[in-house]
Amino acid sequence: MTQKVYVVGLGPGGIEQMTQRAKAALESCDVIAGYHVYIDLIKNDFAGKEFLTTGMRKEVDRCRLAIEEALKGKTVAMISSGDAGVYGMAGIMYQVAAEHPELEIEVVPGITAACSGAAVLGAPLISDFCLISLSDLLTPWEKIEKRLDCASQADFCICLYNPSSFKRHDYLQKACDIMLKNQRPDVPAGIVRNIGRDGENYEITTLQELRDREVDMFSTVIIGNSQTEVINGKLVTPRGYKL
Amino acid sequence: MTQKVYVVGLGPGGIEQMTQRAKAALESCDVIAGYHVYIDLIKNDFAGKEFLTTGMRKEVDRCRLAIEEALKGKTVAMISSGDAGVYGMAGIMYQVAAEHPELEIEVVPGITAACSGAAVLGAPLISDFCLISLSDLLTPWEKIEKRLDCASQADFCICLYNPSSFKRHDYLQKACDIMLKNQRPDVPAGIVRNIGRDGENYEITTLQELRDREVDMFSTVIIGNSQTEVINGKLVTPRGYKL
Repeated sequence: MTQKVYVVGLGPGGIEQMTQRAKAALESCDVIAGYHVYIDLIKNDFAGKEFLTTGMRKEVDRCRLAIEEALKGKTVAMISSGDAGVYGMAGIMYQVAAEHPELEIEVVPGITAACSGAAVLGAPLISDFCLISLSDLLTPWEKIEKRLDCASQADFCICLYNPSSFKRHDYLQKACDIMLKNQRPDVPAGIVRNIGRDGENYEITTLQELRDREVDMFSTVIIGNSQTEVINGKLVTPRGYKL
Repeated sequence: MTQKVYVVGLGPGGIEQMTQRAKAALESCDVIAGYHVYIDLIKNDFAGKEFLTTGMRKEVDRCRLAIEEALKGKTVAMISSGDAGVYGMAGIMYQVAAEHPELEIEVVPGITAACSGAAVLGAPLISDFCLISLSDLLTPWEKIEKRLDCASQADFCICLYNPSSFKRHDYLQKACDIMLKNQRPDVPAGIVRNIGRDGENYEITTLQELRDREVDMFSTVIIGNSQTEVINGKLVTPRGYKL
C-alpha cells in the first residue's frame, strides 16, 4: 500500500506559477490539504479532489489530519504558498510524521517570495543574500535582531519576510535601525506587494526611507548590498562582471 | 514595435521543473539565448526557435547578442539554470541594457538550487537562511570569509553554491573551518548532487565531516543551524511549533 504525503509549494500566485512537477503531484493525489486561503486559490483547477482545510496557526493539526489520511492509503498533498521548504509546511510535516518512518514524504519545491519578489523589482538578489522573517511568533526577537545585525555587517542583500502585522507595526522600523548601523542610509531597497496576484505592485526606495514606511502583511521587502544600483527604475545588484 | 527580453529561470532540471509561466515565455519567443549546456537541456522542447549560444564566462557577450536581436524587434529569452535572479543572468542583463531604457526586461523566476536541494534533503531551510557562493571569480575571497563568519555567528542555516571547482579544491575546507569557529561540529549538513537530473543523489553528514569531504561542481551544500535535526534520514530544521 502506498503511504505517501507530498508537501507542495504553489509559488506566488495561481496555477501558472507552479512547476509542472507540482501540478502533476497535485493531480496524482486523492486529498489536498492546506490553509483555506491557499486551497481557494487552486480549488477550481483540481476539481474532484477531496479538500482538507484548517485555519491559520493550526499547522500541527493540519499535518496530523493529512498523515491520518495517508496512513489509510490515500495519496495526500499538503500545500504551502511559495516554497513549502521556506517558512512553509515541509518542516512541521517531517516533525509530526517522525513516528511513521514507513510514510514517504516528498517535498516539491516552489518559487519562494524572495525569488518572485526579486524578479518584480529587477535583480537585487543576484549575489549572496539572506532571508529573515520579522515574525517573532516562532523565533525570539533577540535572535532576529542578531541576524539582522550580522547580515548587514557582512554586506548581504537581505530579503525580509513577514515585515509587518497588526501586532508588529514597528518591527520594520526596528529592523531598519539595526541595518542602518552597518549599511549606508541610501542603499537601495524595494517593496513588493501581492506578488503574482491581482494588484501586484512595487516601489523602489532606500533603507533610510524604508524605516518610516508602512508595509502590510502581503509585502516582501528587499534591501540591497553596498553595490546595489537603480538602473532604469529597477533594483540591480552587480556581480563583478567587467562590462 | 515590441522590444522585449525575458530572462527565464529553468529551475533545476528538465522542462517539468519549469513553471508554466516560464514555459509560456519561451514559447512566445523568436530567439532563445543561453550557455550551450542549458540550451541543450531544452532544445527539443522548443523546436523551431532560433538558438543563440556562447561559451562559459561569456555572459556579457551573450547579453549583448540577445539585446541586439531584441532591438531588431525579435522577442528574445535569455535562460539561466535555477533562478535567473540568483547567481543568474538577470543582473548582467539589466547592466548591459542600461543604455536602452526602451527595452522591456521581464525576469521570470525559477526554482533556485537552495530550494530544490533543500527539498531533496528534507526541510533544512525552513527558517532564516543565507545563500553564499564560494566562487571568488566575481567576489573577493575576504568578503566571502566575512559572510561565512557572520552567517554562522548569527545561527543562520547556510546554503553554499559553487562549493568546489578544479582551482578551488580546498575552499569548502576553508569555509568549514570558519563556520566551525561559531557552530557545533555535529551540526547536521547535507550534500546534493545533480539536483533534478539523472544521477540525483544526496548525503547527510555533519559540519565537521563536511570539512574533509570532496564535493564536485555539480553539488549544492546545506549546513543546518543549531536546531537542525536528522529525522528518518532527512535534514529538518524545526521552526518553533509546539508539537
